[in-house]
Amino acid sequence: MIIVMSANASREQIDNVEKKLSSLGFRTHPIFGDVKTVIGAIGDRRLLDTHSISTMPGVENLVPIMKPYKLAGRELKQVPTIVKVGNAEIGGEKIAVMAGPCAIENEASYIETAKRVKEAGANILRGGAFKPRTSPYDFQGLEEDGLKIMASAREVTGLKLVTEVVDTRDVDLVASYADIIQIGARNMQNFRLLKEVGMHKKPVLLKRGLSATIEEWLMAAEYIIAEGNPDIILCERGIRTFETATRNTIDMSAIPVVKELSHLPIVVDPSHATGSWKYVSALSKGAIATGADGLIIEVHLEPNCALCDGPQSLRPSKFAQLMEELKKVSAAVGRQI
Amino acid sequence: MIIVMSANASREQIDNVEKKLSSLGFRTHPIFGDVKTVIGAIGDRRLLDTHSISTMPGVENLVPIMKPYKLAGRELKQVPTIVKVGNAEIGGEKIAVMAGPCAIENEASYIETAKRVKEAGANILRGGAFKPRTSPYDFQGLEEDGLKIMASAREVTGLKLVTEVVDTRDVDLVASYADIIQIGARNMQNFRLLKEVGMHKKPVLLKRGLSATIEEWLMAAEYIIAEGNPDIILCERGIRTFETATRNTIDMSAIPVVKELSHLPIVVDPSHATGSWKYVSALSKGAIATGADGLIIEVHLEPNCALCDGPQSLRPSKFAQLMEELKKVSAAVGRQI
Amino acid sequence: MIIVMSANASREQIDNVEKKLSSLGFRTHPIFGDVKTVIGAIGDRRLLDTHSISTMPGVENLVPIMKPYKLAGRELKQVPTIVKVGNAEIGGEKIAVMAGPCAIENEASYIETAKRVKEAGANILRGGAFKPRTSPYDFQGLEEDGLKIMASAREVTGLKLVTEVVDTRDVDLVASYADIIQIGARNMQNFRLLKEVGMHKKPVLLKRGLSATIEEWLMAAEYIIAEGNPDIILCERGIRTFETATRNTIDMSAIPVVKELSHLPIVVDPSHATGSWKYVSALSKGAIATGADGLIIEVHLEPNCALCDGPQSLRPSKFAQLMEELKKVSAAVGRQI
Amino acid sequence: MIIVMSANASREQIDNVEKKLSSLGFRTHPIFGDVKTVIGAIGDRRLLDTHSISTMPGVENLVPIMKPYKLAGRELKQVPTIVKVGNAEIGGEKIAVMAGPCAIENEASYIETAKRVKEAGANILRGGAFKPRTSPYDFQGLEEDGLKIMASAREVTGLKLVTEVVDTRDVDLVASYADIIQIGARNMQNFRLLKEVGMHKKPVLLKRGLSATIEEWLMAAEYIIAEGNPDIILCERGIRTFETATRNTIDMSAIPVVKELSHLPIVVDPSHATGSWKYVSALSKGAIATGADGLIIEVHLEPNCALCDGPQSLRPSKFAQLMEELKKVSAAVGRQI
Repeated sequence: MIIVMSANASREQIDNVEKKLSSLGFRTHPIFGDVKTVIGAIGDRRLLDTHSISTMPGVENLVPIMKPYKLAGRELKQVPTIVKVGNAEIGGEKIAVMAGPCAIENEASYIETAKRVKEAGANILRGGAFKPRTSPYDFQGLEEDGLKIMASAREVTGLKLVTEVVDTRDVDLVASYADIIQIGARNMQNFRLLKEVGMHKKPVLLKRGLSATIEEWLMAAEYIIAEGNPDIILCERGIRTFETATRNTIDMSAIPVVKELSHLPIVVDPSHATGSWKYVSALSKGAIATGADGLIIEVHLEPNCALCDGPQSLRPSKFAQLMEELKKVSAAVGRQI
Repeated sequence: MIIVMSANASREQIDNVEKKLSSLGFRTHPIFGDVKTVIGAIGDRRLLDTHSISTMPGVENLVPIMKPYKLAGRELKQVPTIVKVGNAEIGGEKIAVMAGPCAIENEASYIETAKRVKEAGANILRGGAFKPRTSPYDFQGLEEDGLKIMASAREVTGLKLVTEVVDTRDVDLVASYADIIQIGARNMQNFRLLKEVGMHKKPVLLKRGLSATIEEWLMAAEYIIAEGNPDIILCERGIRTFETATRNTIDMSAIPVVKELSHLPIVVDPSHATGSWKYVSALSKGAIATGADGLIIEVHLEPNCALCDGPQSLRPSKFAQLMEELKKVSAAVGRQI
Repeated sequence: MIIVMSANASREQIDNVEKKLSSLGFRTHPIFGDVKTVIGAIGDRRLLDTHSISTMPGVENLVPIMKPYKLAGRELKQVPTIVKVGNAEIGGEKIAVMAGPCAIENEASYIETAKRVKEAGANILRGGAFKPRTSPYDFQGLEEDGLKIMASAREVTGLKLVTEVVDTRDVDLVASYADIIQIGARNMQNFRLLKEVGMHKKPVLLKRGLSATIEEWLMAAEYIIAEGNPDIILCERGIRTFETATRNTIDMSAIPVVKELSHLPIVVDPSHATGSWKYVSALSKGAIATGADGLIIEVHLEPNCALCDGPQSLRPSKFAQLMEELKKVSAAVGRQI
Repeated sequence: MIIVMSANASREQIDNVEKKLSSLGFRTHPIFGDVKTVIGAIGDRRLLDTHSISTMPGVENLVPIMKPYKLAGRELKQVPTIVKVGNAEIGGEKIAVMAGPCAIENEASYIETAKRVKEAGANILRGGAFKPRTSPYDFQGLEEDGLKIMASAREVTGLKLVTEVVDTRDVDLVASYADIIQIGARNMQNFRLLKEVGMHKKPVLLKRGLSATIEEWLMAAEYIIAEGNPDIILCERGIRTFETATRNTIDMSAIPVVKELSHLPIVVDPSHATGSWKYVSALSKGAIATGADGLIIEVHLEPNCALCDGPQSLRPSKFAQLMEELKKVSAAVGRQI
């Protein structure tokens, strides 16, 4: 950690900061510049309450040198994490494709959709039984009945299931049905929920919050790993910017940045990111070519009858066509689907 | 609701949209422009799944005419809501000032702080017993022990208490101690938590999410009111933008915008918005002059020993001085403190 | 255009708006809803000063139905524009790759770089003679001497040239050397400069402003086309968001959105968008797979000696390797490079 | 400057960086941490091309210690700059109020407006003769005829004039009429225009760019001062964020931040920031209470007939009422108007 002293800090103030750091177990190295003094402090920043330093008289600011995450970072674990779910592997050479409707509406249509996405080549089945909705008047999901329908679809198709949990009180229930537990964007910093899923053994799909930096996203992953669950799949699903032509702005650069900073796999959700099925195919291909480990795509038998997020869902036929195109793009970047 | 048809929509597509709307109980009024046709649809949008329309062939987009919130909006309730907490009234002529440390650390210092902020003129005492922290390695609060300390401070000073709840499982516990339950920025769209506090009778301080639009914020209030709890105090605490000179960007325009759209009172949190005590006084005065109904300010006996958010806390003496300045500014805009 | 009247607008206010619209040559169609009235107005919005309506008593807001751009939009011209520059075609089946250093530093290294990028397969040579720099103390470019060096490189390699103009007074000069005139991100709304390049016959590479919406970007293109120059190449180069892991956030969704709204070709600049050579290869492949018509990439013989933007430049060998990878990705999406 | 080496940097790489820095005239101080090494470098960063360091093998990143601006900053000049324009002083104890219509439309109405704003207590008259407009089809200003009308209004009222210049070719012309030359938000990084106004002796009103950080804004001021013109008035006019309830988001925290970092005065433009006259009064009072040195407010005789930005203009009567309220708020914070 580097402590930058202000231009008019007194010698006494500099000494006080050094003393304080020493008393906390840090070794210090002051560098006296022409205008300002900086102090290098060697030790474990996580053991330190940085505020006790940053508010001392004469201190201008603190510059961290080490990343705040440890278990989620590349510095300690360089080998990529591969999350195994049934036969699928996320983070290895193969591309994973999770597909299905946004919300589960009824058994017949859900199982039909499951069959269609499997036929087209999807590895994992998605579906929402608990839906966080901006309006209290919108459909909030079938809850446990939805989970039961998902289980039937798994039985019929053999596809593993990913579904969201929104309340700490439901984690046991959801974990008893799901193969991958999803933490939605709005709950990325619901730390209690993160801890709760960290105490289960099921892989977690961790969506990036709408206004979360990549560092905060990795810190959310750190919460889960710190509880003992290392099987995390990061999911980029668009960030909030000033642009309104798409619902959110997909941050494609997050793919190589995450690959550099972390060992965790990353998938992309072009359906929620754009809010429009018209852009899903283009961005799915783009995500794979950029290096994503997988995709999560909304597919609905009849998008204009969907109870939720219809406009962003592909029809099964369109999805099947996209899967064909994705095979070519995957091959072009040395991967398979 | 207005349905805009694309320039090349066929007459049949226009007819189909009209038929669909009629079948859903809407009255329709098509307007045939020189290039595009638009269809006016009269009825209760909340009864309609808009996606079933927006994905029909030939539909370009939908333009809502009515606001999505109803109970939180001015359209149905024009009289301002005044939330009463002990002797304090939030939303009336008097300005409410909530003050105290970010986290509760120990009884002695907390009670001392409580006395000092009361002396300076604060109406309500703040303090965090459950702390949402970006890092799993940071101090997470004293939990129920913290609430007990808060209760002692209330006994000693007579100040009413505002404190945050972060988990649906803790709402009963927090409600049994707090006079105002706080929903933090990161939980503004934790809809289960909103519903839970909606089922209690305690006033709710609802912080704006870091990337929440004012409309989404009012929709979050709608969740709480829809469960039966109308006593909501909105709290602007900065939004996330590209600017890094302050931790977040305080959205001062939200004050007059909220006053126009909603009957709910609004307070401002300059401590969390800026992340620096140096800017708190200026923005506190600015918020009151802009029309805010109150402030929530961090005060700590020794900011450079604080376990959390020290750099943004004022010392009691600085806070007392600010209160004197705020009296003048309040009077200048026809209010009292 | 739709005029939404406020819930408490009087019948007289509604009549006044209708009268005003009629006097301006619009046909009007009021729709009386249960709470609000809306008025459909048919006519050419561009002939109307919308403010004269939006500020009338009782008017809540105006909803435009037609896009504000006309010449840049798909509504009037559905066939894609293909910009021809020497043998290269931008916007057709082939992918264009523009490459070269950020700034021109000296003739020998520039010509060497030009040869290397040509060998690797680039179609067009980039280079900056006039550099807009955030700091007045940074290198501002060699100006006309730089243009002369570029011309020599064209002579040697046959590659056509793209270079930036930053001042209306220099447009004639730059146009006399360049094959494509670049308008930088900071000048996207320098309307005088847009008009000036609109009066020349050289193709224009129009970079998106850091905080420009796609609509504003197309309006900037409209300025150029309206002056008589239809040969515009849009260039996505990242927008400003809260994320700081990359210099800007590349808006990959802009590719399919632009393709839907406009007939103009779009290329991507991953070097400026990310600010780091480490992310350039991944995002170049991603851009092509998403549907971009080309790329503009910084290449420097020795990035750590570059006078400008060294960290985002690829070495020629790395660029040559990327070109090989891009050939595969282009083929996978049915295009050639 | 601090150079952070990556965790796996070799001793040789560290030595090379030190050698390079020494050869550039820097004194170096390496600090060997448990995981990473950092190197402190003492010298004038402005003499250094930082890229030549940041791209060296083993370098993770560079941390600047000194601010990039010098003439605009507090470090070298601690006394606040007071810009004098006629009898008005901007940056001293008195609050300056600049008022008038967005665009100049005709002589009679402009002079009438000038009289009204003077009567109400404004110090400076604003008006646009050259208008940057998003659409090429919108009114672009009366150009020199507008400047002549402004000069007449100055003759009649004695008010000094502020007006915008948008093209380097017009700076002489505008400077021959204006008392303060305005650089608009879209031109904040039009560096040629900054240099041009820097070579004149007239004070400059420098608006903040829509997506400019405070640091970039001060760097733009640095461009002007570096050419010899120290009389700069910074103008906060809203930044672009995700919120759409107001046209832009007024960054009120910029006031205390600028006061801390710079000696230059700062005024606020609530009319352009919000885009709606309804919010102008509240935010004008807020800006003054927060510490702004002045305001620039749009006033129009008949806002619903304005050729430009009507919805954000106050009528003269409303403006006069606001001036009365501003007198009280100014007094409450120890200033006069």
